[in-house]
Amino acid sequence: MRPSGRTPEQPRDIRITRNYTRHAEGSVLVEFGDTKVICTASVENKVPPFMRGEGKGWITAEYGMLPRSTGSRMGREAARGKQGGRTVEIQRLIGRSLRAAVDLSALGEHTITIDCDVIQADGGTRTAAITGGCVALVDALNHLVKEKRLKSSPLKQMVAALSVGIYKGTPVTDLDYPEDSAAETDMNVIMTDRGGFIEIQGTAEGEPFAQDELESMLTLARQGIETLFEVQKAALAE
Amino acid sequence: MRPSGRTPEQPRDIRITRNYTRHAEGSVLVEFGDTKVICTASVENKVPPFMRGEGKGWITAEYGMLPRSTGSRMGREAARGKQGGRTVEIQRLIGRSLRAAVDLSALGEHTITIDCDVIQADGGTRTAAITGGCVALVDALNHLVKEKRLKSSPLKQMVAALSVGIYKGTPVTDLDYPEDSAAETDMNVIMTDRGGFIEIQGTAEGEPFAQDELESMLTLARQGIETLFEVQKAALAE
Amino acid sequence: MRPSGRTPEQPRDIRITRNYTRHAEGSVLVEFGDTKVICTASVENKVPPFMRGEGKGWITAEYGMLPRSTGSRMGREAARGKQGGRTVEIQRLIGRSLRAAVDLSALGEHTITIDCDVIQADGGTRTAAITGGCVALVDALNHLVKEKRLKSSPLKQMVAALSVGIYKGTPVTDLDYPEDSAAETDMNVIMTDRGGFIEIQGTAEGEPFAQDELESMLTLARQGIETLFEVQKAALAE
Amino acid sequence: MRPSGRTPEQPRDIRITRNYTRHAEGSVLVEFGDTKVICTASVENKVPPFMRGEGKGWITAEYGMLPRSTGSRMGREAARGKQGGRTVEIQRLIGRSLRAAVDLSALGEHTITIDCDVIQADGGTRTAAITGGCVALVDALNHLVKEKRLKSSPLKQMVAALSVGIYKGTPVTDLDYPEDSAAETDMNVIMTDRGGFIEIQGTAEGEPFAQDELESMLTLARQGIETLFEVQKAALAE
Amino acid sequence: MRPSGRTPEQPRDIRITRNYTRHAEGSVLVEFGDTKVICTASVENKVPPFMRGEGKGWITAEYGMLPRSTGSRMGREAARGKQGGRTVEIQRLIGRSLRAAVDLSALGEHTITIDCDVIQADGGTRTAAITGGCVALVDALNHLVKEKRLKSSPLKQMVAALSVGIYKGTPVTDLDYPEDSAAETDMNVIMTDRGGFIEIQGTAEGEPFAQDELESMLTLARQGIETLFEVQKAALAE
Amino acid sequence: MRPSGRTPEQPRDIRITRNYTRHAEGSVLVEFGDTKVICTASVENKVPPFMRGEGKGWITAEYGMLPRSTGSRMGREAARGKQGGRTVEIQRLIGRSLRAAVDLSALGEHTITIDCDVIQADGGTRTAAITGGCVALVDALNHLVKEKRLKSSPLKQMVAALSVGIYKGTPVTDLDYPEDSAAETDMNVIMTDRGGFIEIQGTAEGEPFAQDELESMLTLARQGIETLFEVQKAALAE
Repeated sequence: MRPSGRTPEQPRDIRITRNYTRHAEGSVLVEFGDTKVICTASVENKVPPFMRGEGKGWITAEYGMLPRSTGSRMGREAARGKQGGRTVEIQRLIGRSLRAAVDLSALGEHTITIDCDVIQADGGTRTAAITGGCVALVDALNHLVKEKRLKSSPLKQMVAALSVGIYKGTPVTDLDYPEDSAAETDMNVIMTDRGGFIEIQGTAEGEPFAQDELESMLTLARQGIETLFEVQKAALAE
Repeated sequence: MRPSGRTPEQPRDIRITRNYTRHAEGSVLVEFGDTKVICTASVENKVPPFMRGEGKGWITAEYGMLPRSTGSRMGREAARGKQGGRTVEIQRLIGRSLRAAVDLSALGEHTITIDCDVIQADGGTRTAAITGGCVALVDALNHLVKEKRLKSSPLKQMVAALSVGIYKGTPVTDLDYPEDSAAETDMNVIMTDRGGFIEIQGTAEGEPFAQDELESMLTLARQGIETLFEVQKAALAE
Repeated sequence: MRPSGRTPEQPRDIRITRNYTRHAEGSVLVEFGDTKVICTASVENKVPPFMRGEGKGWITAEYGMLPRSTGSRMGREAARGKQGGRTVEIQRLIGRSLRAAVDLSALGEHTITIDCDVIQADGGTRTAAITGGCVALVDALNHLVKEKRLKSSPLKQMVAALSVGIYKGTPVTDLDYPEDSAAETDMNVIMTDRGGFIEIQGTAEGEPFAQDELESMLTLARQGIETLFEVQKAALAE
Repeated sequence: MRPSGRTPEQPRDIRITRNYTRHAEGSVLVEFGDTKVICTASVENKVPPFMRGEGKGWITAEYGMLPRSTGSRMGREAARGKQGGRTVEIQRLIGRSLRAAVDLSALGEHTITIDCDVIQADGGTRTAAITGGCVALVDALNHLVKEKRLKSSPLKQMVAALSVGIYKGTPVTDLDYPEDSAAETDMNVIMTDRGGFIEIQGTAEGEPFAQDELESMLTLARQGIETLFEVQKAALAE
Repeated sequence: MRPSGRTPEQPRDIRITRNYTRHAEGSVLVEFGDTKVICTASVENKVPPFMRGEGKGWITAEYGMLPRSTGSRMGREAARGKQGGRTVEIQRLIGRSLRAAVDLSALGEHTITIDCDVIQADGGTRTAAITGGCVALVDALNHLVKEKRLKSSPLKQMVAALSVGIYKGTPVTDLDYPEDSAAETDMNVIMTDRGGFIEIQGTAEGEPFAQDELESMLTLARQGIETLFEVQKAALAE
Repeated sequence: MRPSGRTPEQPRDIRITRNYTRHAEGSVLVEFGDTKVICTASVENKVPPFMRGEGKGWITAEYGMLPRSTGSRMGREAARGKQGGRTVEIQRLIGRSLRAAVDLSALGEHTITIDCDVIQADGGTRTAAITGGCVALVDALNHLVKEKRLKSSPLKQMVAALSVGIYKGTPVTDLDYPEDSAAETDMNVIMTDRGGFIEIQGTAEGEPFAQDELESMLTLARQGIETLFEVQKAALAE
């Protein structure tokens, strides 16, 4: 029934490649099927002005799409002189989600910026970015330990994200673009590897969704995110 | 236990004043306690370029805060030359939510812009904006009927929004600013008067939230939103 | 003869409501008939970079119109990314006028920002903003005294503003929108309660105006502004 | 008493050089003493969108200062990405003033843009710009006649502008920079060669000004502007 | 002598991978050693306004660097709201160079945009972008033929680019970042596969360069670019 | 053969007028025939943030064109809110070129900004700007010596620039606008008075250019630039 032939509860092939580029403290290529995002984590020895002197760190994120990561070319945001509303919304979500992974007090006055740049899009770029960005973040935290700038990693828990939705009346996991653009409801679920929710964003694109549909989607999300944590851990074990 | 002395399931006083200013096709002052938002609905005889010729209408929203609607003055976005990320995120949410209220095909090639301007903020401005904006929208749709530009109102259902959250371990309804800034979890729930969900956005500000906390919050939201629909209907009956 | 039925020398009903919103050090709703402007005065413990270390204070103003304060919706300046020329011109005038009310040396290194936001427009928004803004300013100065941040109020004099013009050949006071858009000459007069002029801006919209017309308008302005000072004082006495 | 040794009613040397650069339909260098402004008038065969189809023309102005036209270098507005408030205020004044010189209905659907670029500043740049800009405008109108795009010039009257002020208690004419920066009151007066006022902008920089001071300044302005009309006419006669 | 151990006339390993991403009409990953650039070619059925109706096509380019493509993170241009001077300079060079490859009259009213996004930088990003971008362009032209939108490819000639310079007194080919940042002279040479020059940009970073040094650099460039044409042709033959 | 009747190796009349305006530390009007550029050099007692504390100085340049310096009016960059790509490219070239004239270590922590504003354009504005800007720079350096802020001038060498090109198959010197817009190849050559090259930028506008054409153009450039150094020296001797 799904355009890709997957079963409703089947995510796409998830791949995480560490050390994808060489300059960043953490650098990951994350692939959710044909969705490919480069996630880098960059460390700076300072925090934003509103946090100075508190002894705490900060995690923030920026998101972009290469102009031709999509089926038709999108104007380059740098050339238009502003980031679009969707970009702003997504990068705020990524930043909030990844801050939940880290004990900011133990991070000290460092800022880690997670840049998520989509080089090929096929739905689910924000969930891929969070899932891959968390691995880049772990690498950057370990880098701080290795360089003796921190005594131990301030990582509290792993964070991963998955989209679920109602497609042609059926709850499905990890929507690709053909499903995403036709789904009745789309929900992004961000969880920790301890089973808690960091964020839930469910949106009815057409008809409102009911309580039982919400529960079905949450069940799918919890199952699918288990897979993501396994892929993250396998990548970090390499 | 709540700073305001309310019980956990008790929303603030909700007031909706129609015809608050005189130029707009719909103009509402909505008050959730000390949160006050002017919502106007403006009709234009055209649609955005990407929709031209399809015979359908469009609903969009813009959001702003007066610089001193808050405890300390915020820089004016017009003077800084761009809308902040929070503003963009909120106005996209308002627009998505209110589009769910209307049969866009029956609206014809009109655009209705809902401007939500906060004149005094005390938490929950986005949920107040959606709840009041829906009443302004109904007035604008009825104006089109009265002016014989539409045969009947394309209103499908009423839409209202309420925030719920976990404050000091307890699920509570309609958080004010002191609660909002200290809550462990904050969730905005947008529903229709037929009982369906339009959007759910739940965010753990500190610790992740669990499935049973999610369910408690949703139960509070469903109850509280009933009150909002009553206030909307009473206002429209005047 | 006037569309509103007023006599040439008759201003509209002028109302000033103090403590209109609760966060600002001064907060006023000023109404010149159907023109309604929220004026807030916000105090900061610093001055602009070019004044630092001089021991003097600064008064500045910002002006905005809600998008649907007018008959047809105006684009939101924050969304367009810049303030229009008219906005800039008006907020500079308000700032200059209100600086004349205060002994800046006695103010110390504080900045007071007067935000004037038009929620409903019917002509004369800049004169209403100056007249109401002066009351908000007085409240903010008194707040500084009450909080013992200043020993006494550095207020030198009250400032008020009124528009006068030539409408269908007759000099008239306090033009509303139908008059303003058809007037041959429009003049804004800003005075102190000691009878001096702070600023005069007279513009021929159609034919040039003559010396005797100028004198007639100035006479009307002096008379009408007396009323404004009475309304200001009554409001401050409450 | 004046820093320049001039008598109170004595303007600076006023010089107008036509055909200063070769591309524009009108091109003038205007000098008020050491204040030097290049004024060009450019004709386009179209009007702004809000005027299309009305058969009327439009006059508009833009103003700029070379970064080192002043004593210390000012940042380039093009590099900062926006025009400052003073620039906006001045170019709106120039545009309004010069529109008064022309019968816009007789101009047909042409736009004439007057660019006023200050290459050396010593006070009074806006009055120099209006006075020189009017000559550039006349040349552009005559160019349209010569090219048979108009049957006769739609010029209604000449327009010129002069600053007057109260300097050390004395009313003086055509303030230079040392006077302008120390004056108690500064007033710009724009008149037609038929004796009418186009615009009056008087501002108390320090103490308010009184009715009799206003009258003295207006008298000086009327006298001084006579000289400007003579210089304009002599330049046009060459 | 060179940090990389290369001989003066030895370029880095050059790799061109076609079909790197799946949406664009041409998509190439080009690698000059550790410099990696994604070049996509996107076809649109229209030309810029200034060319409409002439029956000719247009080739343009945009350039960007991922924020952490470099040793320390650069601010994202989309977030800063403008493209930097270096970006503008480079994308204009790429566009001019690639226009030389194509008979624009034979292209018809199509625009092809070459997006060059640097994912890892180690010197020579603009020359890599031109060399890889030309292959993406060829693929896009062939795509138009295959889709029968053009009868035959309007390709006139291949274009490739290489940097040469004077490093520690010796002329060298294809500078990497350690060389580039220390070179006395840096020259970018863009040639066609017929042996003509498209553009030469030589800049003395320290001391001026002499005629004989210029000639040595041009000789190196001509030799090295031969290699680039071979790599391009091998890639296109796959 | 040339539209102006000049021989191929003949530059236009070159004129340099010092002390053109009175405020800047260096102020020059440079004319290459009908191309007229005002170049001012402004000294500040500080350097950009990235250079602070190094004890070295900085030279930078900004470039602008008056809107009607050209045959048809160009939009004002300050009004459009950004500098165009061509402007950015040119001002970076001027800055790089003039930095080569000065020993930045001997300049101490001063910034000299060269503003080049075109008041009339007829081709070759960037080469005129460099040639005239160098004279303004020398005056500013001498000013620092005269004011005892430097012991001796840190000038290393004079810098001048000339355009050469291939026009109708013939190499020519100092192209004016009619030649520039029709030339097959356009090359800007920046040299020092000791005979070294600072920058070479040659661009094929139509067909690629060959090695021997490059050599012919360089020969013309070397000859023509001799004339420029003579004019610079004569101006400085006055």
